[in-house]
Amino acid sequence: MKKIAVIVAGGSGTRMNTQLPKQFLLLNGKPVLYYTIHAFLQSYKDLQIILVLPDEYIAAGQEIIDAYFNYNRIKITGGGRTRFHSVQNGLQQITEDSIIFVHDGVRCLLSTELIKRCHDAALEHGSAIPVIDCKDSVRLLRGEENEAVERSNIKLVQTPQTFHSKILLPAFKIDFKDKFTDEATVVEAFGLKVHLVEGEENNIKITKLTDLLIAEKLLE
Amino acid sequence: MKKIAVIVAGGSGTRMNTQLPKQFLLLNGKPVLYYTIHAFLQSYKDLQIILVLPDEYIAAGQEIIDAYFNYNRIKITGGGRTRFHSVQNGLQQITEDSIIFVHDGVRCLLSTELIKRCHDAALEHGSAIPVIDCKDSVRLLRGEENEAVERSNIKLVQTPQTFHSKILLPAFKIDFKDKFTDEATVVEAFGLKVHLVEGEENNIKITKLTDLLIAEKLLE
Repeated sequence: MKKIAVIVAGGSGTRMNTQLPKQFLLLNGKPVLYYTIHAFLQSYKDLQIILVLPDEYIAAGQEIIDAYFNYNRIKITGGGRTRFHSVQNGLQQITEDSIIFVHDGVRCLLSTELIKRCHDAALEHGSAIPVIDCKDSVRLLRGEENEAVERSNIKLVQTPQTFHSKILLPAFKIDFKDKFTDEATVVEAFGLKVHLVEGEENNIKITKLTDLLIAEKLLE
Repeated sequence: MKKIAVIVAGGSGTRMNTQLPKQFLLLNGKPVLYYTIHAFLQSYKDLQIILVLPDEYIAAGQEIIDAYFNYNRIKITGGGRTRFHSVQNGLQQITEDSIIFVHDGVRCLLSTELIKRCHDAALEHGSAIPVIDCKDSVRLLRGEENEAVERSNIKLVQTPQTFHSKILLPAFKIDFKDKFTDEATVVEAFGLKVHLVEGEENNIKITKLTDLLIAEKLLE
């Protein structure tokens, strides 16, 4: 079956106080997005990438592809108003049966093992959502009150959130709701359960300058 | 009112694959525990510290105090079987009315501002639990099933968990339960609510070697 990674790099970088969106910042001399694309391309020879970028950064994305990859396994498409709309735009390019990975462009340290684990689980269960344990105690707010939650029941969600196209494509025809924070919540709103797989501690999201420093250390 | 920080450094460091417990590892040339103690000593001139260490590391702890601090605002006492028992040992030293900070020895990057914020809130509300937002989507396991939790309702809990002695001392006379992951859960089991305050992103817990590298970057 075809394998397609929809890499969403829609953010305009406002949280980092930098001009450049964080997916274009340099990590050991190469853009964050380089590492993300590279991880997917090397995981499967027949995997294709749909890169979703804000319209004003499509040219910058094309430059990265030309500089480092220089072949046609990667398509670029414009982003939307929210992450949901960006993913929706990316999915419009997909017509064939496939395993679809939806991945945050700024999670650039994922391993080939994680990509393969998600692929295999999505092939078997229809979906694969990578999660990790939470190291901290957790509290749940309920109005003015708050209560402890049993930490072992809490999982932190990562990407690539991976699905069979027969699930993801119809699910994304749904109307947008604010509660859609990721693809799993969209699929659930569509009426299906999602299957969890083990994520990776190092699969961090680069949202602040400190995260970039951390990523540098992790690359060592 | 008196101010007392119970710094719990009971871990024997098994997760780090190092001989030395993580609170003794060097961060820019000084032990992790040095930074933690220093943060509390400099926050209030009249604050005293009770340092709870595994029995076999009391001598090592005393060496740090002698090397860097060299005065008698710090007492050391032996740890217990669990964190609960270690804190209980530390609290046995306290008899007067006080604001008590219970703090993870390996959270060595907390700021004076956080210590003061916890103090002031505990003075007003009886308790102050520092929490931060969760950056990731969150799922709650329910048996075989799992469901999305509204991320804005989830808070990650840090230390110093700060209380008026009139609350914390009687609460810790309770029998130990496995669900006690922190002091807030003990106080709740005693029948009281806890008050949340804003924590700090940089107030990380050093539990792995990578965390030590991250801490080095954050100190820069």
